[in-house]
Amino acid sequence: MAHNSNARNLNQKDLINNILKGDTVSLSRAITLIESKKNSDRVLANSILKECLYKNKKTSIRIGITGVPGVGKSTFIEALGTYLSKLGKKIAVLAVDPSSSITKGSILGDKTRMENLVKNSNVYIRPSPAGNQLGGVSNKTRESIILCETSGYDIILIETVGVGQSETSVYEMVDYFLLLKLAGAGDELQGIKRGIIEMADSIIINKSDGENINAAKLAQAEFQMALNLYPVKKSKWKPKVTTCSSINSEGIEKIWRDINDYFILTKTNGYFLENRNNQKKNWLIQTVNNRIQEEFFVDQQKIIELENQIELLKNNKTTVLAAADKIMNYDK
Amino acid sequence: MAHNSNARNLNQKDLINNILKGDTVSLSRAITLIESKKNSDRVLANSILKECLYKNKKTSIRIGITGVPGVGKSTFIEALGTYLSKLGKKIAVLAVDPSSSITKGSILGDKTRMENLVKNSNVYIRPSPAGNQLGGVSNKTRESIILCETSGYDIILIETVGVGQSETSVYEMVDYFLLLKLAGAGDELQGIKRGIIEMADSIIINKSDGENINAAKLAQAEFQMALNLYPVKKSKWKPKVTTCSSINSEGIEKIWRDINDYFILTKTNGYFLENRNNQKKNWLIQTVNNRIQEEFFVDQQKIIELENQIELLKNNKTTVLAAADKIMNYDK
Repeated sequence: MAHNSNARNLNQKDLINNILKGDTVSLSRAITLIESKKNSDRVLANSILKECLYKNKKTSIRIGITGVPGVGKSTFIEALGTYLSKLGKKIAVLAVDPSSSITKGSILGDKTRMENLVKNSNVYIRPSPAGNQLGGVSNKTRESIILCETSGYDIILIETVGVGQSETSVYEMVDYFLLLKLAGAGDELQGIKRGIIEMADSIIINKSDGENINAAKLAQAEFQMALNLYPVKKSKWKPKVTTCSSINSEGIEKIWRDINDYFILTKTNGYFLENRNNQKKNWLIQTVNNRIQEEFFVDQQKIIELENQIELLKNNKTTVLAAADKIMNYDK
Repeated sequence: MAHNSNARNLNQKDLINNILKGDTVSLSRAITLIESKKNSDRVLANSILKECLYKNKKTSIRIGITGVPGVGKSTFIEALGTYLSKLGKKIAVLAVDPSSSITKGSILGDKTRMENLVKNSNVYIRPSPAGNQLGGVSNKTRESIILCETSGYDIILIETVGVGQSETSVYEMVDYFLLLKLAGAGDELQGIKRGIIEMADSIIINKSDGENINAAKLAQAEFQMALNLYPVKKSKWKPKVTTCSSINSEGIEKIWRDINDYFILTKTNGYFLENRNNQKKNWLIQTVNNRIQEEFFVDQQKIIELENQIELLKNNKTTVLAAADKIMNYDK
């Protein structure tokens, strides 16, 4: 037993050291542990993560990227990632698998579509599995970000699939939020979710090439006008609208310049730190809430009572509120 | 004290009796109590709701209606509601206010847009405030449904704003899910969220009038083909695609016939009951989880420790996981 425990400690120490050295196999192993549902894995994962949280002194840049399926997120990430890698940056891409909450089916992972990035040694790509949360966002993405940063990545790109609450979840863990759009024939504002536009620090009209260029420029002007109607952001940043051809790598430089301007502004006016602190606070509250639930159901009797009440509910022998009272022991 | 307690009991009894008689003022008062954050209101609200859950023997029809802003949800509900009212049905419309999670600003309520329905004595309209949950869905909508049913409403229409997770939340509390779409110039499948299509029992191409008729028919054919590619639903229902002109009340009869066919099918094959039972189960689990959190934080020390740890986190004196350990007392 003592031997086992030592072996585990040694493994953990090695793993952390390897992560710090930038070893991607160890990084992937740690993320897999973080995502595991097994109790023993979770204890180890928490211990590793706690160490990484202390050792991680890096201030990376966290960028969220969203847009409807078909807008060209993978091609955009390929173009942006390649450009940043040439600037000498190390980039981690956390690509959330598109996955439906009903069939739980996962369609072709994005990794296969980022042909050049996959081969780039400065780039680490990790398609997270869809977690418990609805909408396909893994609830361990925050933890994966920390591990990537500990491993020396300068820029973390987090792609969301744009389903359900995933955009909001990703928004709450990044510094900068990019919304990809396509120029359409009709009213550009039709169908845009108000909340998403408000979140965006940058709107990118993608596929601005060939016959699309004029439509893209029109869309750009329309969005810029629309954005002027929105209230000033807490960050004081004025969101930018840019046209971009990911396939020809056009517009990427301008987009990166905007990102840099944003960080200069928000690090000067204090918003960057304020936002990170708020995000840490929310992460803490979520972690505590998860643990409170785990603790409650450690008592096997509670699980039995829950199952019992679900059965009674099914047979119309109780109501939801009365069943909740029983499980909580309020009716004693 | 005894007098107060009697007065409260009398009020509660009166309120429930009035709800059962279909008095809308009492119904609204009960929904307001349910939505209140005040502790004393909540105790009373739970007590009323528990009574209503027992007394409610009505099997109503619960229909979710979603679609992007601008698709014409209010006009559609006006047309459908007016049609159903003429059939002698009592209809409750729970309209979730469009509201952004960032500015918390609520734009013009839908109620003002449903001019005829508002005046119809068979129709009850309640725009719920945006609750705690992101995406603008009030987390007391389930409870409001029960109250409306107890008050004698046959058909409950629940409109979602189509932002964030609201569609998924509403899907989990209805029997039948309607998705409103517009015919566009381009590829009809562009930009459709996979998850939403899978949820839909009926896709309605709205604004099929005037010059739009041909485009709407094309969109109908495209959607119908696309739907054939999806796996068979658990309900065995084959989703229908219909064109509709809400403004001219065209297509509404066909849509209502489809809804009736759906209920005949699913009440025969058992899916209706199975689905309701699953929904009740999920409601129970959510209720228990909320109460577990409330119980944990009843201890003032926990709240103080949480605030303390948030402060330490802000000053970089701890990490999220170490702070969570402290609050949970794991580090003793």
